[in-house]
Amino acid sequence: MGEQIRIGIIGYGNLGRGVESAIKQNEDMSLVAVFSRRDPASVDVDDPQVKVASVDDIEQYTDAIDVMILCGGSATDLPEQGPTYAKLFNTIDSFDNHGKIPEYFESVDKSAKPNQKTSIIAVGWDPGLFSLNRLMGEAVLPKGTTYTFWGKGLSQGHSDAVRRVAGVKGGVQYTLPSEEAIQRVRDGEDPDLSTRDRHKRECYVVAEAGADLAKIEQDIKTMPNYFADYDTTVHFITEEQLKKEHAAMPHGGFVIRSGKTGKSNNNQIVEFSLKLGSNPEFTSSALVAYARAAYRMSQEGLYGAKTIYDVAPGYVSPKTAAELRKELL
Amino acid sequence: MGEQIRIGIIGYGNLGRGVESAIKQNEDMSLVAVFSRRDPASVDVDDPQVKVASVDDIEQYTDAIDVMILCGGSATDLPEQGPTYAKLFNTIDSFDNHGKIPEYFESVDKSAKPNQKTSIIAVGWDPGLFSLNRLMGEAVLPKGTTYTFWGKGLSQGHSDAVRRVAGVKGGVQYTLPSEEAIQRVRDGEDPDLSTRDRHKRECYVVAEAGADLAKIEQDIKTMPNYFADYDTTVHFITEEQLKKEHAAMPHGGFVIRSGKTGKSNNNQIVEFSLKLGSNPEFTSSALVAYARAAYRMSQEGLYGAKTIYDVAPGYVSPKTAAELRKELL
Repeated sequence: MGEQIRIGIIGYGNLGRGVESAIKQNEDMSLVAVFSRRDPASVDVDDPQVKVASVDDIEQYTDAIDVMILCGGSATDLPEQGPTYAKLFNTIDSFDNHGKIPEYFESVDKSAKPNQKTSIIAVGWDPGLFSLNRLMGEAVLPKGTTYTFWGKGLSQGHSDAVRRVAGVKGGVQYTLPSEEAIQRVRDGEDPDLSTRDRHKRECYVVAEAGADLAKIEQDIKTMPNYFADYDTTVHFITEEQLKKEHAAMPHGGFVIRSGKTGKSNNNQIVEFSLKLGSNPEFTSSALVAYARAAYRMSQEGLYGAKTIYDVAPGYVSPKTAAELRKELL
Repeated sequence: MGEQIRIGIIGYGNLGRGVESAIKQNEDMSLVAVFSRRDPASVDVDDPQVKVASVDDIEQYTDAIDVMILCGGSATDLPEQGPTYAKLFNTIDSFDNHGKIPEYFESVDKSAKPNQKTSIIAVGWDPGLFSLNRLMGEAVLPKGTTYTFWGKGLSQGHSDAVRRVAGVKGGVQYTLPSEEAIQRVRDGEDPDLSTRDRHKRECYVVAEAGADLAKIEQDIKTMPNYFADYDTTVHFITEEQLKKEHAAMPHGGFVIRSGKTGKSNNNQIVEFSLKLGSNPEFTSSALVAYARAAYRMSQEGLYGAKTIYDVAPGYVSPKTAAELRKELL
């Protein structure tokens, strides 16, 4: 293995922890340091060998780090961190507020370009690999419809809603894609489906002692916006079951393009799906693969903000272009 | 719609006919002419408006055509046509002899680069979109296994083998992916599967009058290399059924990456699949989408032979980068 790509991490939650783990699966990368806003001594990294530093000292690392992976949230962290650190480092982030991507892109681009840095934003699976498949599906089959289904996955917002119901002690909510809806799309029926038609909701609830279970179920199922218009199922479980069986963070989903070609209007179905045992670890793995692309693109002078649409796939693989043609094409 | 990308087609078989059809689905493209080695008057194009010209006159069209789509076969046509026409035009082809891709790439590159042309080779679904997904799967999940399954699809070589059996008047063979094998992969079992374990074979046979059906079935099922090691089914049908029910050219398949992440070795499954009503029409549709990329890359001075690994996805879509960020990401 030749040169190593030197990585830094800002933020050490589920995503930062996943990045630390993913770097170990990539021989051409090494982790230089984790940066935190907290006191470095209080940050409990998985690998004790890993250096933890304060974000206040980050400017000392501009020569030591090739790509900084920003592991903050999209609501408040990234809108500030993206433009700030794109002045100093090549960066990668998983900004996932779809509606604000254009604005965020511009603000990062303004920092990265004049400072000759490459910043790939909105990496992960949606936005990310799902976006890539939406583009390919519609470009190859212009006459058609794209369907995105999410799940089975834990939804934080809906879990919170369940926990606010009177008599509920704890609980989680999973969003499930409707199997019937997926089948209709796969069969080329080209159905008209709302988000509600495409998804079901499943709740696992721990009730308080003596609570009226029928009322809890009724309150959840009739809750406007969250559950009323969906096919919702409520399961009552024990606190122990909740801890044991519902602690993982699975997610996934499907992007299906259903198109027609030729004089006979032949059906063509392109489907991409994910079944993720750990949602944050998968996103982290995508961030690390695209960190390689950011490094290589910066080496070639391709500066500024980028999205996965701007990244030739070859940049993402550790293999050379000749190896890719020989082994994978 | 602004400028139109002006397309030429060389070769008018299933693929050329599919390209003609696909261009009509793309508003930013127009078909200038179909070039044939045959007498142009003898080529029966689907749309009588389309101009047919002789390949002997092709040099007269260098200023009139932005991208030439080569619709010949990989065995004998493309090894000659690729390097020849990459000197004169930006080109796209569906070269699909996997083992010879490196050699073919070099020969096209030698023509394209000094002549400032952009030639994207090996476009379609395998090689093509399947290759893209093999790369992404292994880059994002380095610890894992990639599985490619083909089918349900008509196999020309195996259909020929069936028709050579004594007593067989006609027939077709479909390759089917093994549902059990796919399920094991989807479940994250990471099984060790040979091509044989992954596929089944299904034959639809028209027997000659008075032929011994049991013997035909036996001869097919025990045929070495082709069928003996596979789970093979033989159905006898009438000549009418063969014509009516088996004239389409369906195909498809699955690329599945099964990987593990994190300290708890969480299962992560990435799956891409195609269910194609018409194999050649889908390949044609991919060729046309990548013709757009070849045109744009040539405008930016990105000359030489390219594969889909070298093409940033944004080039493939008719939308601008800003539109893509706003609408699809």
